[in-house]
Amino acid sequence: MSIPNLTIDDCDYDCIVIGAGLSGLIAARNLYRAGHSVLLIEARDRIGGRMHSQQLASGQWIDRGGQWVGTTHHRFRALLDEYGVRRFASPTQGRTVLMFNGDRYEFNGFFQGFYEGERPGVSEAEWRDATEAWDRFQALSAALPAGHPRSNEPNKRLDSDTFARWIEENTQTEFGHWYFSYMARAVGFLGPAEPNQVSLLHVLWGQNCAPQSEHPEADLIHGGAGQIPEKIAAELGDRIRLNEPVLCIHQHETGVAVETAHNRFAAQFAIVAMPPHLSGKIRYDPPLPPLRQQLTQRMSMGCCAKVMISYHTPFWREQGLAGIGIGNGSWIELCADSSDPESGTGVIATFVVGDRYKRWQSLSERDRRAAVLSDLAIYFGEKALSPVAYHEVDWTSDPWTGGAYAAFMPPGVWTGFGEALAASVDRIHWAGTEIAERWSGFFEGALLSGEAAAQAILVNLQSNHFNKRVVLDND
Amino acid sequence: MSIPNLTIDDCDYDCIVIGAGLSGLIAARNLYRAGHSVLLIEARDRIGGRMHSQQLASGQWIDRGGQWVGTTHHRFRALLDEYGVRRFASPTQGRTVLMFNGDRYEFNGFFQGFYEGERPGVSEAEWRDATEAWDRFQALSAALPAGHPRSNEPNKRLDSDTFARWIEENTQTEFGHWYFSYMARAVGFLGPAEPNQVSLLHVLWGQNCAPQSEHPEADLIHGGAGQIPEKIAAELGDRIRLNEPVLCIHQHETGVAVETAHNRFAAQFAIVAMPPHLSGKIRYDPPLPPLRQQLTQRMSMGCCAKVMISYHTPFWREQGLAGIGIGNGSWIELCADSSDPESGTGVIATFVVGDRYKRWQSLSERDRRAAVLSDLAIYFGEKALSPVAYHEVDWTSDPWTGGAYAAFMPPGVWTGFGEALAASVDRIHWAGTEIAERWSGFFEGALLSGEAAAQAILVNLQSNHFNKRVVLDND
Repeated sequence: MSIPNLTIDDCDYDCIVIGAGLSGLIAARNLYRAGHSVLLIEARDRIGGRMHSQQLASGQWIDRGGQWVGTTHHRFRALLDEYGVRRFASPTQGRTVLMFNGDRYEFNGFFQGFYEGERPGVSEAEWRDATEAWDRFQALSAALPAGHPRSNEPNKRLDSDTFARWIEENTQTEFGHWYFSYMARAVGFLGPAEPNQVSLLHVLWGQNCAPQSEHPEADLIHGGAGQIPEKIAAELGDRIRLNEPVLCIHQHETGVAVETAHNRFAAQFAIVAMPPHLSGKIRYDPPLPPLRQQLTQRMSMGCCAKVMISYHTPFWREQGLAGIGIGNGSWIELCADSSDPESGTGVIATFVVGDRYKRWQSLSERDRRAAVLSDLAIYFGEKALSPVAYHEVDWTSDPWTGGAYAAFMPPGVWTGFGEALAASVDRIHWAGTEIAERWSGFFEGALLSGEAAAQAILVNLQSNHFNKRVVLDND
Repeated sequence: MSIPNLTIDDCDYDCIVIGAGLSGLIAARNLYRAGHSVLLIEARDRIGGRMHSQQLASGQWIDRGGQWVGTTHHRFRALLDEYGVRRFASPTQGRTVLMFNGDRYEFNGFFQGFYEGERPGVSEAEWRDATEAWDRFQALSAALPAGHPRSNEPNKRLDSDTFARWIEENTQTEFGHWYFSYMARAVGFLGPAEPNQVSLLHVLWGQNCAPQSEHPEADLIHGGAGQIPEKIAAELGDRIRLNEPVLCIHQHETGVAVETAHNRFAAQFAIVAMPPHLSGKIRYDPPLPPLRQQLTQRMSMGCCAKVMISYHTPFWREQGLAGIGIGNGSWIELCADSSDPESGTGVIATFVVGDRYKRWQSLSERDRRAAVLSDLAIYFGEKALSPVAYHEVDWTSDPWTGGAYAAFMPPGVWTGFGEALAASVDRIHWAGTEIAERWSGFFEGALLSGEAAAQAILVNLQSNHFNKRVVLDND
């Protein structure tokens, strides 16, 4: 794997972007639009990463990965508008179902990182326990300054506890306890993770940088989020190469050389646009700084599968239900109506997360399906047992992502190694939703980080510091 | 990277062992001795992994990696005897130095995971705080059953806290607090780690499986531990190939195919003998089970460098000192006399760990050296400033190891994913000190795990279940 020293004239491209998820696509597009030569390479045989739709036999599209658009996802909303992709409001009309310790409640409202509407059936003491703890959690979270958590003394204290410990000390009832565990697992706070796997500082930051109160699941996309990668790719044309897993990135005075299983490409700069743990699987020559190596050893993806279940109609609406189920049943802690009103069909999106995922993935295909459908039947009735289509997307089994929704920090990692998360290493820059300072873990974060990486490359391409050709011209 | 489906007749070897550290070497040797064809491949241009000696200009050998032999390291002691490698007792005659909050104490004794001899200068209240907490820690640790921690309710509770939280709740004095932090960092408990990065369950297990009270640093090796890999390699002859980083392991009905940067080798079985996070950098076709993928994302190496400092003589002995320094100074929390009595020279081995490592690695080479020597001068006097040789070994910068001494578990990982640590995946088996159930993190653990992996392969090679050739012969 040795490589001859290259001069800048050997550089095939101004920038090679590695990873054709949303952040890599947008970085490559922005550099291309700015008049630079780019190559976008991707290990998989498809683009899109965690932004990936699939067409059902019915013609309808479902999202295998992320699907929602938030009220304050300004860049993402602008991108959808730019490409003429239409949104619709996530269906929320009707009563929410709560299943708690075997009891089933229907109520008008929500309590996903904020509470709106009625108390959901549990006792007033339980409700007060959860909501008062939520207010304390929210105050702690809101007190964090914007940006990535820094390594100062107050943050080190928050980074020394698991979220499980905070929950234990801040809730007295079983409902209160479960509520925060559910938030860590189902809603995610950038993970998702079981509460004993994640740093308190991390979940506080997750709520700070991506507040549930700003309704990150407000809208859905007609035709699926997976259209977006296709539209960006159409602009990039043959500047994208699939099936090119990167083995090694060589870096020298005047450029980078990217070695894949089949090819070698040279450029002035590289953007590595993927979850941190995947960036750690690539060899670097010279090796990356030790703190970066430690960081990528310590940031795991959440442990989660997505399941999409389609029905002839959104039958739950006949019963006045919103198609939103929340609860501590065997498998499904959260499910949501994702039916496109133009299709007329019913689609429920759900997730199997954490310890539930561990048990679930060990079952046969038939038992996994039965497990999910039986929980849905408790939420929405017997009709849930007869779907038109049932799709599991096991992101945790897929080594080109390694989990979902995103990566998270165990205790001690933000304050120990967080400084290496976004810091470029000479000519190598990083992108991906995990490194965004706002809406990390969402499409919006992927966009922000891809745009920022492209911008940093543009500045470097124009600077004498990196561009030796300019220096020589001036001699 | 596609590969044709192989039949067993295409298998070049009975077993390919990947990684030529101690565990891989001993696994390959044992299979070879049992009459099987083996190939041992190694990414680096040298064998030995973390068992690596270097000869100084003086002719003397120093250990860049592990160096000690414990009283109950029965397999390792037997191996040394088998190869005729002689040990000597670690020099401990004389007074130990403690530096605490700028005060310097000399005392007769130790307090590294047990306490022997005098109280080391600190107040009686401080000493009682540390030793009483140690007794509680020791009792909790001793109550764990033998073997890897299992995922049961008591363990889940222990796995939900950081060690930092336990320290905070169990010590009242600054000395007591520091003592346990020092144990997590300098002594390691399988890491080392800052206490807020590691699971309480993990450090309890570390002390259980590798008790300091059994004197794991009792002896040193004449000529260095690095002789051992050479002696095993001599037996294996040309069955070892260096400079072969493995890119992908393909697994099929009847065997495995191992793809390196330059070659492709086929065998009936593979043993992957390396720290878990490195095993996660290899591609697997088909992919590994999701819990294994999650595990290797979550088990980081400790953050640490080793520094070896040589002097004309062990000058500290003139002052009646043992050459052992312990304290909360700027850089060096632990150093130990590693002088071979047959050489007459003086050698101090020390480590820069955790947050201290982070600060230290950002310094210039000159400042790093000055930092280490200035701390040694506080322990042992001005003569420490004038070494004959000074060697840094920055394991954390080295991507073929990625840290030292070994890997550790953050909260929630043992009880969440520990079951995937040692479990073979069809024809792929794992080895390495990290997966040993006893003396994990030590040479002894590497030996035990390498021996166990070889034994498992031997059983499989003789079983009808895996050996299709036997089945065919019987038809």
